[in-house]
Formats: sequence, C-alpha cells, structure tokens
Amino acid sequence: MNPTLKLPQGFLSAAGTAGIKASSKPDCALIVSGAPLRWALAATTNTLKAACVTRNKKIADGDQAVRAVVINSGNANCATGVEGERANERFAVAAAAALHVSADEILTASTGVIGEPLPVGKLEATLPTLADRLADGAETLAQETLAQAILTTDLVPKTAEVTLSGGARVVGIAKGSGMIHPNMATMFGFVLTDADVPQRTLRALWPGVVAESFNQVTVDGDTSPNDMAFLLANPQTKVDEAEFIRGLTEVTQSLARQIARDGEGATKLLTVEVMGAASDAEARRAARAVVLSPLVKSAAHGNDPNWGRVLSSVGATGVELALPSLSIQLQNTLVYAGTPQTFDAAEVSRAMDAPELLIRVDLGVGTGSGTAWGCDLTADYVRINADYHT
Amino acid sequence: MNPTLKLPQGFLSAAGTAGIKASSKPDCALIVSGAPLRWALAATTNTLKAACVTRNKKIADGDQAVRAVVINSGNANCATGVEGERANERFAVAAAAALHVSADEILTASTGVIGEPLPVGKLEATLPTLADRLADGAETLAQETLAQAILTTDLVPKTAEVTLSGGARVVGIAKGSGMIHPNMATMFGFVLTDADVPQRTLRALWPGVVAESFNQVTVDGDTSPNDMAFLLANPQTKVDEAEFIRGLTEVTQSLARQIARDGEGATKLLTVEVMGAASDAEARRAARAVVLSPLVKSAAHGNDPNWGRVLSSVGATGVELALPSLSIQLQNTLVYAGTPQTFDAAEVSRAMDAPELLIRVDLGVGTGSGTAWGCDLTADYVRINADYHT
Repeated sequence: MNPTLKLPQGFLSAAGTAGIKASSKPDCALIVSGAPLRWALAATTNTLKAACVTRNKKIADGDQAVRAVVINSGNANCATGVEGERANERFAVAAAAALHVSADEILTASTGVIGEPLPVGKLEATLPTLADRLADGAETLAQETLAQAILTTDLVPKTAEVTLSGGARVVGIAKGSGMIHPNMATMFGFVLTDADVPQRTLRALWPGVVAESFNQVTVDGDTSPNDMAFLLANPQTKVDEAEFIRGLTEVTQSLARQIARDGEGATKLLTVEVMGAASDAEARRAARAVVLSPLVKSAAHGNDPNWGRVLSSVGATGVELALPSLSIQLQNTLVYAGTPQTFDAAEVSRAMDAPELLIRVDLGVGTGSGTAWGCDLTADYVRINADYHT
Repeated sequence: MNPTLKLPQGFLSAAGTAGIKASSKPDCALIVSGAPLRWALAATTNTLKAACVTRNKKIADGDQAVRAVVINSGNANCATGVEGERANERFAVAAAAALHVSADEILTASTGVIGEPLPVGKLEATLPTLADRLADGAETLAQETLAQAILTTDLVPKTAEVTLSGGARVVGIAKGSGMIHPNMATMFGFVLTDADVPQRTLRALWPGVVAESFNQVTVDGDTSPNDMAFLLANPQTKVDEAEFIRGLTEVTQSLARQIARDGEGATKLLTVEVMGAASDAEARRAARAVVLSPLVKSAAHGNDPNWGRVLSSVGATGVELALPSLSIQLQNTLVYAGTPQTFDAAEVSRAMDAPELLIRVDLGVGTGSGTAWGCDLTADYVRINADYHT
C-alpha cells in the first residue's frame, strides 16, 4: 500500500473502529462524494446473496446517482434472514443521517463471518464520528485507513492508481484473499475516479473490465455471497474513453494480482497466460482452470515442471484446442509443443523457485487471449484453515 | 479388499510385473472372458484423451462384442502423440496374439504418469506369460492380484460384489485416489457380471449408474484424461433388470466410497447428501460442489461445524434453492433451517471427530436427491504433492 494515496477529486473518506472485530482493528469506513456519483456495480453470481448485495442491486436497477458507500468488515450479514435485511437498511439509514443525504443514495458493503447477526447498533454509534472526520485520501489513509478498515484476514492492504493524460485519476482499493479463508474469501473492489464519463458508458464497460481483472483471480473456486466491485465516478475531468478503459484495466489488474499474492499461506504469485484460443472468453476460462487446479498449485509450490498437470487442467475445461499445435511454457522454457519437449528439468525447477511464476499456454486454434492470477498451494494454507474454529 | 474375491462365471484374470513402475510392483493385468462380452463404457470428458480412451471409444461406436481388457499402470500413455497411438495399438495386438483373438476384441486401459512414452516392449514381453497364467478370480487375486496391478498411488485395492437373487453376480474392481495425485487421479472401474442382459440395455443403463457413483466422487475438480468405467457382461444368468441396476449401483457406490476414503493424506470420508432439489441432477451437482470445496474440506478436517461454508458452496452452483426452507445437518444435528439454529458447537465438533462425516442439505424446492463422496483436506496431502518431483 501507498501510505500517501490520495483519492480522486471530490472524494472523501473516513475509517474507524466500531468494535465488530474481536481484534479491535478498524472495521468501519465511509467513501463519500461531494457531488452525485455516476456508478456501476459488478456483484456475486452466488444464489445466496448477502443483504448488502441484494439492496445495492435493487438501487442499481433504479439507475439513480448515489453519494456514498458505507462499509463494515468482521461480519458479512449474510444468511441472516429478514433480520439481516433490516440491519442492513439501518446501516444505510444511519450513514444517510450522518451525511445528510437520503438512504437510497447510500450503498452498503459488509464482509466477514456469515450467519451471525450484524451488530448494527455499534455501527450506528460510530457513523456520526466518522462523518465528522471525513477527509481526503492522503490524510485518512495515513492513520486508520480506509484500505485497512475493509480487510478481514488479508495480510496487506491493496491499492493501485493511475493518472490519465488529461489529469483525471483512477484509484483502486480492494480487499480479498488469494485463497480460502475462515470467513469466506469475499472480494471487494472500490474504484474511484474523477473522470467525466456518462453513466451508461460506465455500466457498459465495467463488466468487461471486471471480467479481465477481479473475475480472473481464482481463489478456491467458491464465489462468496458478498463479492462486489464498485466503479464510482465523480465527473470532473474529460477523458478519452479508450485511455480511461486502459487505466481502469491497469488499476483493477494490479489489485487482482495483489489479491492473488496475498493468498493465505501463499509463497508465490502464479500468473497463467493463455493465447491462441477460439475466443477471449475461452482463453480466460482455460487460464482460470489452470490457476485453480490443486495439482498445478502444488507443483508450483514444489517447483515441479509438471506440464502434464497444466495440459490436463486445460483439457478438462472443454475449451477448443489443437493438440498438435498446442504449446506450454514454464518460466519462458518451452516444455510441450505438440509433443513433450526435451528440457533440463533441474534448470526449469530452479527458475520456478521465484516469487512469481509464469505459465503460458498457446491453444493453437485462434487469436483469443486471457490471463488469470492465483498462488501456490501450501501446507500452511491447509493448516490455517483446518485448525480454525468458528 | 477381499483376498478370496471370485470373478463372475466365465471370467479369468492374470496380473504380473512388466517393469514399468520403478517400485517393481505389479503393473500389468488381463481380464478375459471365455465367451464374447456385452459391454458398455463411460469415459472421461477431458478434451485431452489418452490413446486407450480414444481407441476404446472407437470400438464402442462399432457396437461389437469384445473378449478382454488389457491394463497397465505406471504410464498413462497420454499426450504422447502419434507414437503413443501406435504403442497403444501394439499393446492391444500383443494381448490379442497371446489370447488368440482379434485385436478389435481387446480393450486397453493405461494409467500412470502422462507425457512419457509407453514402454510397450516390456508389456509385449510379459503378456504371453500372463495369458498362460489365466485363472479365475480367487486364485489370481490371492497372489499378484488384478486389483493390485491396476493401482498407481492408491494405498489399498478396491473391490465390491453382490449376488443377485437368481445367482448372477456383480463384481467390481476400481483404482483411483480420492484426492490429487502426482500422476493424475485417474479412476478406473471394472464391473464384471454374468448377468444375461441385452447389450442395448447395458449401454442404456450404464451412464445413469456411473452418474450416481463414480461421477460423484469429487477429487480435485480435475477430470483425468484416462478415466474409464467398464461394464463387462458374460451373459449366463437371467436377472430382473431392476434388481440388476440396484446391484450395479450398490457395487459402484461402494467402489466410489472406497476411492474417496483412500484420498492422499485423507483422514476421513466425507459424504454429502442433498435432497429437496428441483431434480436429481441438480442435487448431484450441489452435493459435488460441497464435497469439492476446500473450505468445507478444511472444516471437515478441523471438526469445525462451519455450516456457512456448506451454504455458500451450494449457492455458488446456481442450483435452485429456497433459502427460507433450506436446512443443513452436520452429523445429524440441525445447524441451519431458514435461519441459523442454536446448537452446541463443541458437541457437534466432537461428533465430527470421526472417520466418516455426513453433511445433509435440504434445498427446500422439490424432490430431487443425490449423494457425493470426498474426503477432508489435510496438510499432508499438500505436502505429498508439493514435494513430489516429476
């Protein structure tokens, strides 16, 4: 994390401790805009949806502007029934009252343990103080930071930023674990910008950006009931749309890599690039399958140049491939090209003993390409999760 | 394994050591019928298919009777190109010559490491000896057994049998690991019977039996390029078709459980029963998702009554569910029923500290049901696979 991270023009934030986490770490945060925000939301596809997800999606259907996102960590308010929905609404109402806006201008985001009642009274008691302490990013982030307050079991905060040629900025903040977590590997992404882009454009481009970034982080194959990626724009600075999309992609892919690298027990970042696919979507699917495979992840940890595991995990997806022209590279060494290649296994193994591991697969059928990020599978990660008790 | 396991009437087998495995354990076997066999095959859906799978599927398309299956372990003959296809054909031709039948009456099955040339010369040298030693099951299985010769990294052989009311028998032999394995968790199932059932009936019923047994063993989410389940019938004894299907299901589900229990590093068998689904297929899908989830598998290992992980993994599948009437039982204790239930977590944790763990989920929408089998996730299993070098 960059401790001097500054939010884009027009955004303020504050973070604090409401006392939801047993650790007494920061667990409550506000992201607020002085002017109405244009926005887009990508949310979990899990049939089970946390109360905050359901409520935000309903507001998104209405297409109106919003003014703030209120966030808590330590409790997901998920599988908590009608009581949970009421608690979530109270959370929004309390934030609206503190900020002097209406409740339907407030988005909510909860992450943490599921199935336990949200202690919304603690949040209601904290929000007025937070509203009084609203500050621009640099100040807030240096102390009880926004990026810290949204974390659950993450080891490090995750931020990224770019400045576009016209001066507009894109700033991203995320939470999420690269691997399984006691309280679910919920992923939140908040991308803030002062770029002046129409709302319909934001909504049209956001799914594509998310598909190439957050949705390409493969954790444990589970989709959390709370996953959400927000794009929030306080329209102040004109931008070139293509450059804006590149900036969004850079920021979200950086956050995706940071999430993967922070996997529980992980010792290395695993990047899988697939090319030569029938489509970009097939390439992304194949890349996700490789980075999800426990066989590949174990081989990555043990520095084992076991290309058979890579090939088999691609084959299991059913994506179109041409075996005679398919090729696989491990750390830039060609190990398979239609047939097994002769290579120095000890040398490739040494090259794999690195903090970043790159696997490239060319499916040999088309021009589609895509990348996915994950991490190695370690005994530590199993131990942490097996020994954890709810 | 039952050391006195007897094959059904008309079947003979032999097993031996061709020297493919570095361990010098048995690695080659024949299952032979004195009369033409009616048969059905369920094979891997992996786009990458081993030479034996491609060849057997082609023979299956022709619908003719077969006489024998020849099996090797220690080498999968997969991703070995045209040379691999030739080696596989030589394997079949050598078996045919030894048995005095034609090559297209021979099915082949290879399992083991992928991407290495099959040392078919060693198999050719061994097959005549095996053909001379053909014996009925009791004799063969007591020594260099069929059930042992098909194993790779399995810890124990897997067999099951039932006798139907009219005297016909169903005998199953399987190999496969419940979890990730260095050389791919290929699963083979050979179900032999003397039941007199038309070939078209065998082919019609086999996919359904496999769907409720072998396909419900969830290992690491990967489908091996070599997976095959054979149903081989030497028609001698009349049977009631419904009873025959029940017998097949009993044998194949027993083998499925044995495979799950033998997972690398596993300490317990995990059974997930889903009911109240919109269809049996949705129930089976949900059950597989729960038993595949690293979160659930870790919780199972740690005796953690974390029902939230179960609920979330079901939700992630997209199967139809009614949250208000959904319920979850852990070791027969109701922990969720529309809302979180009050239960003694320490008591449920103690009940989970057992060699078998049962999770029941009622989706609350219909009458579909299905079961899946897996095992817990342990640090041992990661260590074994991460430390393995090809």
